[in-house]
Amino acid sequence: MSQKPFLHTVLSPKLLGIYDVSNSVVVIIDVFRATSTIATALHNGAAKVVPVANVEECIAIGKTLGAITAGERDGKVIPGLQYGNSPAEYPRSFIEDKTLVITTTNGTRLLKMALDNGADEIITGSFPNLQAVCNHLIKKGKNVILGCSAWKDRFNLEDTLFAGAVVSHVKEYFTIHCDSSLMAEDMYTLHKNNMFSFIRKTTHWHRLSAFGLEKDLEYCVTENAADVLPLYKDGALIAG
Amino acid sequence: MSQKPFLHTVLSPKLLGIYDVSNSVVVIIDVFRATSTIATALHNGAAKVVPVANVEECIAIGKTLGAITAGERDGKVIPGLQYGNSPAEYPRSFIEDKTLVITTTNGTRLLKMALDNGADEIITGSFPNLQAVCNHLIKKGKNVILGCSAWKDRFNLEDTLFAGAVVSHVKEYFTIHCDSSLMAEDMYTLHKNNMFSFIRKTTHWHRLSAFGLEKDLEYCVTENAADVLPLYKDGALIAG
Repeated sequence: MSQKPFLHTVLSPKLLGIYDVSNSVVVIIDVFRATSTIATALHNGAAKVVPVANVEECIAIGKTLGAITAGERDGKVIPGLQYGNSPAEYPRSFIEDKTLVITTTNGTRLLKMALDNGADEIITGSFPNLQAVCNHLIKKGKNVILGCSAWKDRFNLEDTLFAGAVVSHVKEYFTIHCDSSLMAEDMYTLHKNNMFSFIRKTTHWHRLSAFGLEKDLEYCVTENAADVLPLYKDGALIAG
Repeated sequence: MSQKPFLHTVLSPKLLGIYDVSNSVVVIIDVFRATSTIATALHNGAAKVVPVANVEECIAIGKTLGAITAGERDGKVIPGLQYGNSPAEYPRSFIEDKTLVITTTNGTRLLKMALDNGADEIITGSFPNLQAVCNHLIKKGKNVILGCSAWKDRFNLEDTLFAGAVVSHVKEYFTIHCDSSLMAEDMYTLHKNNMFSFIRKTTHWHRLSAFGLEKDLEYCVTENAADVLPLYKDGALIAG
């Protein structure tokens, strides 16, 4: 019997370089809120979502593509952009067939790193599209890197919980010699039935809830509300 | 009321640079087995323990100080050195009043990084000296960095469990806005009553148990068996 492919969890972009991402599917995880919003926009029919690292790029690419531009700082739309980072802003009635250019800090940075390091395939993951991610990983049967975007390189709980959710669903199909993955699964198992109360303890909750984003954050830990596979291709995420 | 000092957990040496270690007590954690062996040797009366990064340095400093030299690779004493890395090799009858020069990879590297980054004080922590570490941190009342040595920069469970044990014992005395610390405490609470079986799941167990080190590893997660405070001063760890 051939060995099952490997699965590793990377807890911070700073740790990505330790792992060989070539010949691997890399799952970019930025639960609060980039990858949750990307899944939601694509699930609601967006043509594509272009993740960019800064505001200038967002404005420039938005203009070139005639696209919607989005980005927030401190809970407010960034001057020069049109919309925010909330998944609630992208219902089908608004986003269908449109292109969204979104500026996010941690998630986009990790995605570019995975690209530069030669990842075989890049997808994005969040609780709203948990099942689609798991189905895809099982179907592909390749090595997997679950990449947590973290916050300014610091470990965060919400991305780890999502990695744990994936581990818990796909582990029988992979070889997992990875303490990060064991920990992530433990944390998910421990908290999956009290997610709304547990996320109130995280540092990110304290940052974002100050801006009245509680409902947003609760949505971002709700499983399979936007079950689509965002696949990175030619600079954009499309429904795979 | 003045604010309580901060406590952070750093899950890998690669993440140390994100944190400000100046004006902080840094606890170097290398549960399997460097910091467990250091605590044991000092608890059994060693005059001091000099941690060094490589074999050449170990031999040279050992000669200069007329000290015992120790280091292992793959479960065997490294040629040119005298003893191994097992805490069981350092009973009082052997180590009392002697100086031990020990070569360890992950722990020593993190210690030097903390030193270079200007840590205010460096101590080492392990389950055998958990209580001494906690008492010291509470008494000092300074900011604390719990530094996990990890394994080749990869997150490991055993160092995280020890960080969690410290958090669980001292948390009321500190301001903890740190997801790593919350996670570590959860992991410790989840597994503290089944530690011997849980550590059998870790990747490090799989590496070391192949060398017949099971008893060693069980000792390394036994609380307060060598309750001493190893304090780094003038290039060596001494009983504080």
